[in-house]
Amino acid sequence: MIIDIHGHYTTAPAELWAYRAHQISNLGRPTKGSLNISDERIRETIEEGQLKLQRERGTDLTLFSPRAASMGHHFGGELVSRYWTEVCNDLIHRVCQLFPESFVGVCQLPQSPGVSPRNCIEELKRCVSELGFVGCNVNPDPTGATGFTPSLGDEWWYPLWEACVELDVPAMIHVSASANPSLHTLATYYITSDTAAALQLLESRVFDDFPKLKIVIPHGGGAVPYQLARYRGISTVERRQPFEEAIKKLYFDTAIYSQDAVETLLKAVGVDNVLFASEMVGAVYAVDPRSGRWFDDTKIYLDGIEWLTEENRRDLFEENALRVYPRLKEQLRRAKPVAGA
Amino acid sequence: MIIDIHGHYTTAPAELWAYRAHQISNLGRPTKGSLNISDERIRETIEEGQLKLQRERGTDLTLFSPRAASMGHHFGGELVSRYWTEVCNDLIHRVCQLFPESFVGVCQLPQSPGVSPRNCIEELKRCVSELGFVGCNVNPDPTGATGFTPSLGDEWWYPLWEACVELDVPAMIHVSASANPSLHTLATYYITSDTAAALQLLESRVFDDFPKLKIVIPHGGGAVPYQLARYRGISTVERRQPFEEAIKKLYFDTAIYSQDAVETLLKAVGVDNVLFASEMVGAVYAVDPRSGRWFDDTKIYLDGIEWLTEENRRDLFEENALRVYPRLKEQLRRAKPVAGA
Repeated sequence: MIIDIHGHYTTAPAELWAYRAHQISNLGRPTKGSLNISDERIRETIEEGQLKLQRERGTDLTLFSPRAASMGHHFGGELVSRYWTEVCNDLIHRVCQLFPESFVGVCQLPQSPGVSPRNCIEELKRCVSELGFVGCNVNPDPTGATGFTPSLGDEWWYPLWEACVELDVPAMIHVSASANPSLHTLATYYITSDTAAALQLLESRVFDDFPKLKIVIPHGGGAVPYQLARYRGISTVERRQPFEEAIKKLYFDTAIYSQDAVETLLKAVGVDNVLFASEMVGAVYAVDPRSGRWFDDTKIYLDGIEWLTEENRRDLFEENALRVYPRLKEQLRRAKPVAGA
Repeated sequence: MIIDIHGHYTTAPAELWAYRAHQISNLGRPTKGSLNISDERIRETIEEGQLKLQRERGTDLTLFSPRAASMGHHFGGELVSRYWTEVCNDLIHRVCQLFPESFVGVCQLPQSPGVSPRNCIEELKRCVSELGFVGCNVNPDPTGATGFTPSLGDEWWYPLWEACVELDVPAMIHVSASANPSLHTLATYYITSDTAAALQLLESRVFDDFPKLKIVIPHGGGAVPYQLARYRGISTVERRQPFEEAIKKLYFDTAIYSQDAVETLLKAVGVDNVLFASEMVGAVYAVDPRSGRWFDDTKIYLDGIEWLTEENRRDLFEENALRVYPRLKEQLRRAKPVAGA
């Protein structure tokens, strides 16, 4: 079974964006309102988008979450963020109900700049307990690169980590769009934030205080695997735990886009800490003019690595995901009868 | 000849820091004052620091600049930054005069948050024309990660690029210390800023408008070589010049700290665009407990790469530096008679 742990609903119907636009015009008096999208519209956008590609590329299941760049936690206040988050998560839930064998939900959270992550717990619980989601995306910088957010190593985040551990769901650390014109969202902000997130966590006490917490750093870990020796050196200077050991506290996805890079990642953090992902349909939805293949068909990079054993491949494509997302097994069991009906 | 293009005077005498401390207590009425350090004190700090290591490691010459983390452009106003910069550059000049065969100067600039880089031109000209410096360090974020700075691709920077081209000196893009507690200066802020800098320049018109401008991205280019395929994909989606071609407009140094990483860099940008550097004495001044060798003895990584030809090695250690820093040849000519005296 091939599980892609990192897919966003980037092909959502226009009605979703109409809802968001409505939030702008109602900024003074936010109301929840409602999102009216037919099952047929959802089916269309999935069957001609994500699912078509999954079938072509041989991915069985995607852990599916709302479009990351649209989480936009920096926009509006706490209430705007809550309504938007609920609507986005409900839509993901509908996708998962319509295609239970192909999608399992991962939620966004109602974060807001300067607001304690404690306010996310209710929505996280709803998504996990009521909607069957198996993970969450945590934005390490709800300001959208326009202000300060405490380090992920700070106790400010502890109520959220506590809830993740209690619910047994991992957190993928994933920023939303950059509101700083100097930082390209997909090219710069995602990658620099991944780098910062990994280092914030590894210089903190988070994993001492929450040994069961599971954190996934996306996009191949930003700069970390390439700069590994720098971090080994700094850890040595600062008399910390050897960085090559510390890094095993984190999980990384394969949403990088060349075989060389995937190999660098695997060598840096080890097969056990890497999970297959494509982040499609996303930043690099294009055919590589050199190879004639889709950049984000990341399975081919793993397939090309000759030194991986069959067991390694099973771990990367399936077993690691089932281990890091423990609620996934239950969701897969539930999906089966529907498929056989 | 082995030229290290990236060294900072991190072992400067305490008198320099006393000067800086004085600036804090005189923040209300900044005065230039003076720095009193004997030649003997300077000799000591160099001979027992940087130069000792250069001799041990076989580096002939270092392009030497003030300590990057101490540039502190976010501290004080324009005048504070100007005085501090002049004092730091003058000290580098004294090192270069005392050891003309081993050091050539690279200056810091009197940048300040929100102040046009136009104000740096006078000091840049002084350093190049009067002190014989061959390059400058440009801080892409004088706010120290606490505010907004226009993208390096923005016309805001054009007066400075114009001066660099006119004086025929390259700019190394190098932030100073992070004043944002979430960002570790050496581990996170340097690396994320390198990444951002490269992408800001490559999505801009800077090299169309200044085809002769030479920019060096330090620390092996942050995340860029590892994330190369992501950037190739994004460039394809955005119908830009192929990224693997665009990246040749930039130069990169080898201040990463493993052979694998140096190979990744060389494969990503090509031998012609890489310059030997160690950034010692710096972030990773420690012995690798695994190999028993100094992390920042970066020559060994290049020496270990078997597929490099003799010509490649000459380019990496010497010729590329002479090409990117055209004023270096003249400085080397001047140094000779002094050495023979």
